[in-house]
Amino acid sequence: MNSPMIRVILGHIMKIEAAFMLLPCIVAVIYGENVGWTYLAIACITALLGVFMTLKKPADSVMYLKEGSVATVLGWVVLSLFGCLPFYFSGEIPSFTDALFETISGFTTTGASILSDVEALSHTALFWRSFTHWLGGMGVLVFLLAIVPLSGGSTINLMKAESPGPSVGKLVPKIKATARTLYLIYTALTLMQIIFMVIGGCSLFDAVNLSFATAGTGGFGVRGDSLASYSPYIQWVVIVFMILFGVNFNAFYLITLGKIKDALHVEEVKYYLLIILSSTAIIFINIFRTCKGIEEALRTSFFQVAAIITTTGFATADFDTWNTTCKIVIVMLMFVGACAGSTGGGIKVSRFIVMFRTIKKEMNTYIHPKSVKKIMLEGKPVEHEVVRSINVYMGTYIMIFAISIFLVSFNELDLITSFTAVATTINNVGPGLNLIGPTCNFGFLTPFTKYVLMIDMLAGRLELFPLLILIQPKVIKGFFERRPKVKKAE
Amino acid sequence: MNSPMIRVILGHIMKIEAAFMLLPCIVAVIYGENVGWTYLAIACITALLGVFMTLKKPADSVMYLKEGSVATVLGWVVLSLFGCLPFYFSGEIPSFTDALFETISGFTTTGASILSDVEALSHTALFWRSFTHWLGGMGVLVFLLAIVPLSGGSTINLMKAESPGPSVGKLVPKIKATARTLYLIYTALTLMQIIFMVIGGCSLFDAVNLSFATAGTGGFGVRGDSLASYSPYIQWVVIVFMILFGVNFNAFYLITLGKIKDALHVEEVKYYLLIILSSTAIIFINIFRTCKGIEEALRTSFFQVAAIITTTGFATADFDTWNTTCKIVIVMLMFVGACAGSTGGGIKVSRFIVMFRTIKKEMNTYIHPKSVKKIMLEGKPVEHEVVRSINVYMGTYIMIFAISIFLVSFNELDLITSFTAVATTINNVGPGLNLIGPTCNFGFLTPFTKYVLMIDMLAGRLELFPLLILIQPKVIKGFFERRPKVKKAE
Repeated sequence: MNSPMIRVILGHIMKIEAAFMLLPCIVAVIYGENVGWTYLAIACITALLGVFMTLKKPADSVMYLKEGSVATVLGWVVLSLFGCLPFYFSGEIPSFTDALFETISGFTTTGASILSDVEALSHTALFWRSFTHWLGGMGVLVFLLAIVPLSGGSTINLMKAESPGPSVGKLVPKIKATARTLYLIYTALTLMQIIFMVIGGCSLFDAVNLSFATAGTGGFGVRGDSLASYSPYIQWVVIVFMILFGVNFNAFYLITLGKIKDALHVEEVKYYLLIILSSTAIIFINIFRTCKGIEEALRTSFFQVAAIITTTGFATADFDTWNTTCKIVIVMLMFVGACAGSTGGGIKVSRFIVMFRTIKKEMNTYIHPKSVKKIMLEGKPVEHEVVRSINVYMGTYIMIFAISIFLVSFNELDLITSFTAVATTINNVGPGLNLIGPTCNFGFLTPFTKYVLMIDMLAGRLELFPLLILIQPKVIKGFFERRPKVKKAE
Repeated sequence: MNSPMIRVILGHIMKIEAAFMLLPCIVAVIYGENVGWTYLAIACITALLGVFMTLKKPADSVMYLKEGSVATVLGWVVLSLFGCLPFYFSGEIPSFTDALFETISGFTTTGASILSDVEALSHTALFWRSFTHWLGGMGVLVFLLAIVPLSGGSTINLMKAESPGPSVGKLVPKIKATARTLYLIYTALTLMQIIFMVIGGCSLFDAVNLSFATAGTGGFGVRGDSLASYSPYIQWVVIVFMILFGVNFNAFYLITLGKIKDALHVEEVKYYLLIILSSTAIIFINIFRTCKGIEEALRTSFFQVAAIITTTGFATADFDTWNTTCKIVIVMLMFVGACAGSTGGGIKVSRFIVMFRTIKKEMNTYIHPKSVKKIMLEGKPVEHEVVRSINVYMGTYIMIFAISIFLVSFNELDLITSFTAVATTINNVGPGLNLIGPTCNFGFLTPFTKYVLMIDMLAGRLELFPLLILIQPKVIKGFFERRPKVKKAE
């Protein structure tokens, strides 16, 4: 195990986090909030530790998939541990478990909150809370790759471990350029949303925060009723941007290259939009009578479908009061999730496409035993490796899901709360049903349940495997073993 | 499509069913119930139709997997349609939908009932109801293969389509001999259970009926409270036999050959017993305080775990009143199911073993990218085809499950009832939770929901694929096309 290299990566992450922690300090200055000093102090300590950890360069910079996975998981743990300190030391979230829950929920873009009164938070804290979504959405390691020249080594393994979807599509041949392109598109889209929201009369503070939460498909709001009290225009803007941030970023990259026609033909995006439209139609039919008009019914159903499938988790209505059909559609959308290569969570549309095509192919071999057809996606045959990895993914997903529900059941909540608590965290959505519905929060859960859900959030965000690799006895043992030193040439 | 061959198979099935319908007639004579005449009349009509359909021998007896699947599904439909007529025409179940539901629930060994008062039924009807479990448990096509010499043709495809589990293990080289051996073991075990129950003071009628329901892992009882009012001895006998009927029949076959050591080493059986023991322990800890003593707590937890994992669905306690942890274990056991090659339903233990080993293998390749290990089961490498088929099975299962829940949601039941209604029927268990808990019945559902659940029961019993094959447009079209005639040698 190349521990020195992992140490350096963790150090870099701490330095980046410290730098970003200066942003809430600016917010504190603007609003004259004393809590800013806490952020500044923690930023300095984090930066110092980061510098200290990156002082000694590792002799060997080679990283295998194993090390990439371990670095990613530990990176996210470090990020969350330091990220929660301002909430804790400022006293705004007095329990450490709660502060950590809120931070992991932020970075993993889940948006499940333990707070019963969001509006009681300082502007500084609200900003940092929303910002965790933005950073977590595209990924801190992708950011690291975009700015730090990690000499040699297979850095693709860091990106593989952090990026959502069955396979990392290299946008451009070089990783660094890919990472930069991704962050550029991401930032540009976020800025566009802020501008559109401000035009609609939204305050700059709310616009910035909500855009961060939309961009990362997170879902933390700045008001107690999430998005319900904003104007229809603002809600429509958020709907459009939620859907956009759930799109495979490859499509945006194609647009920047001028290949708009190709972008419109990305298969995954087509199915993603199809699912959104049909789900909206189903919910529209079911809630139509309870709404004040067609526009409201359309907006409410569109909003909730977009919020759940992209795993953002905003709410403009209490969908827990909807009928069974609507609730079942909502829960299913949690599992479907957004496109691969977006900032959204869930199982991802492309995995389902491949799964269904595998079934279709199997049925076909029953009817025509000699037919040899390849499973296609985006006009290319899907490699056998990818199909296998998706199958293993589904198996692992079911396994982690089952274990989590069993552990959560010790909390003695009802079945629906237990089931949706796991579903909403492992898919990085945010709200669930019943006791954790859109008008409720996660604060009342036992600390044990909270830790289980934190692991689920991380497992979901990092797409299960990195976490599973970390807990292998062999890998844990590897930490305490030094790599055989490479003999110096004499 | 070889329609003539399918017609002949359906004809044979009707003749077999007619013959078996004489058994309830005997019961009617014993108890002096007039309802017996209805059974006799329907048996005669069914037999006549069967004879008529098998009059003309098909020119071509070759059956491919496609035809085997179609014959199996249609066979089960025919079986259920004729099997429900006595209930309907005798007036004991006045609604045709309900009569069909009860019969499909019987043949598929689900045991979900629409009856609110079982004890109001005649002995004749109770017997026929229990007997459907026994016939459906091992399979009517397996029975057909055991007695009718279907000349030539790949009859393995009939058995493949009907037998539970990822692959049909041929016990002995010849299909007919395999089918006979299976029915011999099955009958012997059933007789043993009847004897053990009668020894314990159970009436012969109850012993026969409950043994049929246990053998087929069905779950129809003859008393309103299922098994709760029987003596502890009877309950223990049922526990032991439920567990036995959930065991892979290969193990019993090995025992009949004297290879007891080999039988004890069947891997699937080991894990099956391990799951039973650990689930019992979990439930025991949770219900201990509410029971009158250790024996009662142990018996109740053992009984319910065995009843659910084997998908029998008997009950000695209202598990719907247990705490969340117990209910979650119960629901998980519904999905796990019994061993492949048993009469039980569910996903089957061996599928989970292969799934977990696939995950383990994948994790291992992350740590040691060059390692090439095969997935092993029962000491033999699992063929790539089997692994793929299990993955497709899981995908199909999820798909059918999702569609079913969506359709059931139109009934406007709560989420738990909707979810467990599908879970308990597709896994052929019987009772669910909430409105369809062990003390309730399925009678109040809308006809639409009942038909959805009937399809789920059939899909579960026939392990999804045959049903999926039948609904392919190409296959449906094939019915109306004649096979090109084989030219006669001149």
